[in-house]
Amino acid sequence: MSEAFTFTLSKTEGMARRGAFTTPHGSVQTPAFMPVGTAGTVKGLTPEVVRETGAEIVLGNTYHLMLRPSPERVAALGGLHTFMNWPLPILTDSGGFQVMSLSSLRKLTEKAVTFRSHLDGTMFELSPERSIEIQALLGADISMQLDECLKLPAAREEIARAMELSLRWAERSRRAFEARKADGYALFGIVQGGDDMALRHESARELVNIGFEGYAIGGLAVGEPQAVMLKVVEETTPALPAARPRYLMGVGTPHDLLEAVARGIDMFDCVMPTRNGRHGMAFSRFGTINLSNARHADDPRPLDAESPHPAARTYSRAYLHHLVKANEILGGVLLSTINIAYYQALMAGMRSAIEAGRFADFHAATLAGWRQGDIPAL
Amino acid sequence: MSEAFTFTLSKTEGMARRGAFTTPHGSVQTPAFMPVGTAGTVKGLTPEVVRETGAEIVLGNTYHLMLRPSPERVAALGGLHTFMNWPLPILTDSGGFQVMSLSSLRKLTEKAVTFRSHLDGTMFELSPERSIEIQALLGADISMQLDECLKLPAAREEIARAMELSLRWAERSRRAFEARKADGYALFGIVQGGDDMALRHESARELVNIGFEGYAIGGLAVGEPQAVMLKVVEETTPALPAARPRYLMGVGTPHDLLEAVARGIDMFDCVMPTRNGRHGMAFSRFGTINLSNARHADDPRPLDAESPHPAARTYSRAYLHHLVKANEILGGVLLSTINIAYYQALMAGMRSAIEAGRFADFHAATLAGWRQGDIPAL
Repeated sequence: MSEAFTFTLSKTEGMARRGAFTTPHGSVQTPAFMPVGTAGTVKGLTPEVVRETGAEIVLGNTYHLMLRPSPERVAALGGLHTFMNWPLPILTDSGGFQVMSLSSLRKLTEKAVTFRSHLDGTMFELSPERSIEIQALLGADISMQLDECLKLPAAREEIARAMELSLRWAERSRRAFEARKADGYALFGIVQGGDDMALRHESARELVNIGFEGYAIGGLAVGEPQAVMLKVVEETTPALPAARPRYLMGVGTPHDLLEAVARGIDMFDCVMPTRNGRHGMAFSRFGTINLSNARHADDPRPLDAESPHPAARTYSRAYLHHLVKANEILGGVLLSTINIAYYQALMAGMRSAIEAGRFADFHAATLAGWRQGDIPAL
Repeated sequence: MSEAFTFTLSKTEGMARRGAFTTPHGSVQTPAFMPVGTAGTVKGLTPEVVRETGAEIVLGNTYHLMLRPSPERVAALGGLHTFMNWPLPILTDSGGFQVMSLSSLRKLTEKAVTFRSHLDGTMFELSPERSIEIQALLGADISMQLDECLKLPAAREEIARAMELSLRWAERSRRAFEARKADGYALFGIVQGGDDMALRHESARELVNIGFEGYAIGGLAVGEPQAVMLKVVEETTPALPAARPRYLMGVGTPHDLLEAVARGIDMFDCVMPTRNGRHGMAFSRFGTINLSNARHADDPRPLDAESPHPAARTYSRAYLHHLVKANEILGGVLLSTINIAYYQALMAGMRSAIEAGRFADFHAATLAGWRQGDIPAL
């Protein structure tokens, strides 16, 4: 029954790619968006609700799960799929990004990063090998190498140093992963190099030399303008092997996704649909809609009468406004659901468009819809 | 197509009653438990999830909806059923209880109660007539008369004064309700009188003289011991007409429900399954289980492998513990679902038992299960 992690490209249009990859827990159609299940849950949503949005894969956070409830505990309970009742593929990050953004008292050495938990001050050490071990304990279908992620802007020497450390960690991650010999599971390398294209190209080349089942572009969506991000994506994807999936980490808005697919990206993850949903914001074909705005208080229209998801078709804007104003949990639950469903519909739209050779049209029509700002007045 | 509100008793055992009532939005099997949809939402749960617990009717709070989003707005949006996407029966309370417990600067006169909103300080007036008007604007299948609800213990003269005012308000409520002439809709009177049985009997007698589609017992679950509550119930139900449903307001624990059904009650509402669920507590056949307790951290067992609800059968106690400790929204969502489902299963169990003439056995077996404290060790 052993089977390799496979990625198949079925169609391309310009740099945009239509494909699918296969993992031990099933296949995922690409381009794909992965909802973020930070601490073993996509915040507020049952796995059934996540599945009904169209999501085929979720992301789990190594940092959060390592602190609580601990990877050894999750493993003893049958792994993350069983623990959170999500039978489909799971990708876990390496923990590196959250160590940098959430923990305190970090000490970074060649060997590992040592940090204090933001929850209770406990000291933890995370090395490339421990990160792979944790992701194996969680049972991730796709693991990520440990890397060092900087905030932009940063000095070139600093970016180069972090990129080179990340490359050495990539090699150690790969060796640790190979030692597992688990069929069908995948490890992705992460291209670093900030906004310096020479460093990005060097990073990509060296990672390809090591060899991974897929390649991520990391160190973006960390404060840089969208134009910088897209330029890095556009100039990095050609340096990556066509036969492997490409994952743009932590991105982004629906517009980011549209433009990144146009530049050759196959996979995304982002907390925006859930986090912004909890703050009263809806993503839609008509752009973003702030439900806390009083103009929605008497509006009987649903967010999108033609949405493929019933929640977007059923609840009135007035009701969603009421839930948001009253700080009702259901407001965040419904808007998170509606937003993930919109992200999934956007990805499905891009997939169909690439398949049909009309991605350029889809791109233009989608932008026009967002520019419109809302449903046209009757 | 006009149809009266009807209540049919199909079986009794001792004082316990098996029946059903019919409203413009469908029938409800009794004894029934109504989840509380305070501000137009059963906290954290979609209507589909509430329906899947087995609930056939929910309660809406006049006080909360009157403050926000306002009954006129709900009416303009199609009524509460449409607003919250709950197509089945809705009972609304009169607002009186929350005015007493939540608002400030109350002034109670013969005419009405004037109070300051706990949200923004706006002054509101609630009279028996306005309460009926609000409940009509919401479109409640069952409305409740406005009453004055005291905390126990209270002096006899104070209890008598409030009971007599409530009777005068019952009469005004009935007149206001009759003026609507809406077929199939129901108004319930509320028996008051604290723990003084002479006052309770007087209240019941006078309410029956006015005539209502159903009768509630109010002013309980306000701090008195369970024995006091059950004694009042036991001595009040015989004073109410057998052919009308009897509703014990704001009650209670599963044990309260079991004992109150044994004393002739047909309907209940309570925030406990949702509120306690949000605080990490599960109700089950084995009694209450505090999921925040560390003893659950490594427990792979579900809460109840034989529950009729999948959430109670699927998620491990370890996972629920993790969600509660991590303060994840999904913890409250799942435990609210599981708790309402347990309440519904308990009601369904009582209904079947009364039907089969084995309520006494069911009562004993249920108590034994709770006493057990948890699933027996293997």
